[in-house]
Amino acid sequence: MKTVPVGVSARHIHLSQSHVEALFGEGYQLTSMKPLSQPGQYAAHETVEVRGPKGGFPKVRILGPARSRSQLELSRTDAFAVGLQPPVRESGDIAGTPGIRVIGPAGELDLEEGVIVAARHIHFHTSDAQAWGIADKQRLTVKLEGERGLILEQVIARVSDSYALDMHIDTDEANAAGAKTGDRATILD
Amino acid sequence: MKTVPVGVSARHIHLSQSHVEALFGEGYQLTSMKPLSQPGQYAAHETVEVRGPKGGFPKVRILGPARSRSQLELSRTDAFAVGLQPPVRESGDIAGTPGIRVIGPAGELDLEEGVIVAARHIHFHTSDAQAWGIADKQRLTVKLEGERGLILEQVIARVSDSYALDMHIDTDEANAAGAKTGDRATILD
Repeated sequence: MKTVPVGVSARHIHLSQSHVEALFGEGYQLTSMKPLSQPGQYAAHETVEVRGPKGGFPKVRILGPARSRSQLELSRTDAFAVGLQPPVRESGDIAGTPGIRVIGPAGELDLEEGVIVAARHIHFHTSDAQAWGIADKQRLTVKLEGERGLILEQVIARVSDSYALDMHIDTDEANAAGAKTGDRATILD
Repeated sequence: MKTVPVGVSARHIHLSQSHVEALFGEGYQLTSMKPLSQPGQYAAHETVEVRGPKGGFPKVRILGPARSRSQLELSRTDAFAVGLQPPVRESGDIAGTPGIRVIGPAGELDLEEGVIVAARHIHFHTSDAQAWGIADKQRLTVKLEGERGLILEQVIARVSDSYALDMHIDTDEANAAGAKTGDRATILD
């Protein structure tokens, strides 16, 4: 049985260093509140407000460290609430996606693009992927057990020496399955 | 292929006639804004506010006609937002479920129980069920296509002469699948 731990991603934002400074002040550096499952990644103490055409969220967690481009990841439920229709995309694939207003304690900015619904995916360390015969970018079918048990198709395999084994789903997917962080999922094929 | 239309249920409330009167005034009758897929059922013009321990929703649609017991159906995402942990239940099975405060234009009341996350289900007219060999209460596995395609297990068959063929899922399930009302789902087994 190929089982993987489940990590549920609530809405969050990645920021470029220049956007960190635009929102928090010149030279500002994000600070780590809690390490995440992927080595070197962390939930920052810092949050921002985001405002879309229909609504916003006052406190969206920043995940660090800073990236080359800013990106806001919403569930589809969140997207309806703010009035945007972002596509389902892999992290980093933001061309042509909607933008949104972002507000920090020291400044505001309009992201021109970068709002996505994150495509569900599994991070595999290269050694895990080799042991299970799974290739980077492969689409997998994965089962979540429970009273609302469901089977997710089109789960993207992401393989790297810098990854730790973890399946990332958003809050809509977790709530539809009655799943929570720390549950186990089974790769069917 | 056994395909069924999909109906996405947003949060809504069913009220007993005595609760309709407590909230809207003595002798008040709900009025139909839009018929629903099930014969005789309708979305009412009337809405109520609900308030839980952590938050509320100012405008929850009432579905009519009045029932023997009041029942608020939330998605799990909604339930987190109001601060409740309702179980996944079939409609009408409300023993031991949480309550919530309900506020109407002419009065307020505390539901002592009745908050549920609705178990996904398919309404079958008796003739549909017979043609497909499906029994009342049977658990089905149902596929939703699309870029977020998924397979729902534990879908409850509900069979009656008074039903029209329709699969009911909540907004978490719809958003996890990228599905919307009017899509088609396929019963796998």
